[in-house]
Amino acid sequence: MTQNIYDNDAFFAGYSRLNRSIEGLDGAPEWPALRALLPALRGLRVLDLGCGFGWFCRWARDEGAAAVLGIDVSQKMLARAAAMPDAAIAYTRADLERLELPAGSFDLAYSSLALHYIENLDGLVSEVQRALVPGGRLVFSVEHPIFTAPAAPGWSTDEAGRKTWPVDRYLDEGPRSTDWLAKGVIKQHRTVATYLNLLLRRGFALSHVEEWGPTEAQIAARPDWAAERQRPPFLLVAASR
Amino acid sequence: MTQNIYDNDAFFAGYSRLNRSIEGLDGAPEWPALRALLPALRGLRVLDLGCGFGWFCRWARDEGAAAVLGIDVSQKMLARAAAMPDAAIAYTRADLERLELPAGSFDLAYSSLALHYIENLDGLVSEVQRALVPGGRLVFSVEHPIFTAPAAPGWSTDEAGRKTWPVDRYLDEGPRSTDWLAKGVIKQHRTVATYLNLLLRRGFALSHVEEWGPTEAQIAARPDWAAERQRPPFLLVAASR
Repeated sequence: MTQNIYDNDAFFAGYSRLNRSIEGLDGAPEWPALRALLPALRGLRVLDLGCGFGWFCRWARDEGAAAVLGIDVSQKMLARAAAMPDAAIAYTRADLERLELPAGSFDLAYSSLALHYIENLDGLVSEVQRALVPGGRLVFSVEHPIFTAPAAPGWSTDEAGRKTWPVDRYLDEGPRSTDWLAKGVIKQHRTVATYLNLLLRRGFALSHVEEWGPTEAQIAARPDWAAERQRPPFLLVAASR
Repeated sequence: MTQNIYDNDAFFAGYSRLNRSIEGLDGAPEWPALRALLPALRGLRVLDLGCGFGWFCRWARDEGAAAVLGIDVSQKMLARAAAMPDAAIAYTRADLERLELPAGSFDLAYSSLALHYIENLDGLVSEVQRALVPGGRLVFSVEHPIFTAPAAPGWSTDEAGRKTWPVDRYLDEGPRSTDWLAKGVIKQHRTVATYLNLLLRRGFALSHVEEWGPTEAQIAARPDWAAERQRPPFLLVAASR
């Protein structure tokens, strides 16, 4: 089973204090870019892989989605999601490493910053492919491989005073342990190519790839985000079955 | 017009001494990976964008290609290519920034390490799309965006003795001036996403993306290549019209 770090008390407390936890989708700077990759949701059956507090599930309902299934491994997060019930949203606790879904039962599979925790991503992509109707969409974000690659991730300042993100181990895929909100958070580093080829091999057609960084307007509002343009923190992908 | 650095005397002399210039395709470590993305060439009409000394054009003929058109901006390179004539290979001097090709006249467009010199890549992709038959393939390599991004590209050694490739300016696309074989060689930095979205917007379907690094066997033969696995030097892409 994937490390269930979100049920770690210290991690959960820290995560709950992030803007994206308090403000929901609008607290996530990459949300406008991710939203732009989504189809119109009216009438769609939507799957949210790693639904967390359920912000996206509720938004999808507001946009007219017919039914939403939110899946997460964290009891703490699902408990909070379930506190805002909607008859057309089902929350289910499941390990994405060994998910089983009914075939041809969703029009859109969505995932925000969850898939980089998954070891058996090929198995999950295969299951999602099976669960989507023909023409169904997959839209997801992950931490960008440039961000996850380094043995010791972090900013550095070079001799000329330039802020850089030193990259190593980019082509060595596998687990990375980082200390973010808690000690020893395990993520799976994969290259951009691996994310894309996993989809292509399962018969998905890619429609858009985005290496996300803040816009100038976002930097004007939040000057501390400027460094994120030196290397993208997130990778966004849209594909169709 | 793109900077025609290959006709610079010092650059040309240096380039001519590289393994890939002396040994041809087998002197290029990424060639086996690029070759694996190609269709069977027998009977195909092949376009080589940035054909240089014509190594690929001649190889394509050896593989049974019906006709090959090699295009380059460098007179010096084309002169050397033309010294090994083949009635089914035509070499043409042209600027890839404003190339015009007959519509629907090629089955495969190939390009090795040339497109990162091109400013108007969208125009070239559009022209290649028009020049390919439906179902035709596009296979190319470029310097990897992680490689081209930095303001001051080069290796660094961190406090723990790890060799890293410091990345900055990744999301700031545009020209980069580097000193490689000659002073002030101008390349166009683009993100991985931009390369892929340029193709997707012109109606290409992606079939494979590769962030190339040397294999273990290659490193055993050439231990000095080991560092290339810390960050990929090349991006390889296969798509079909």
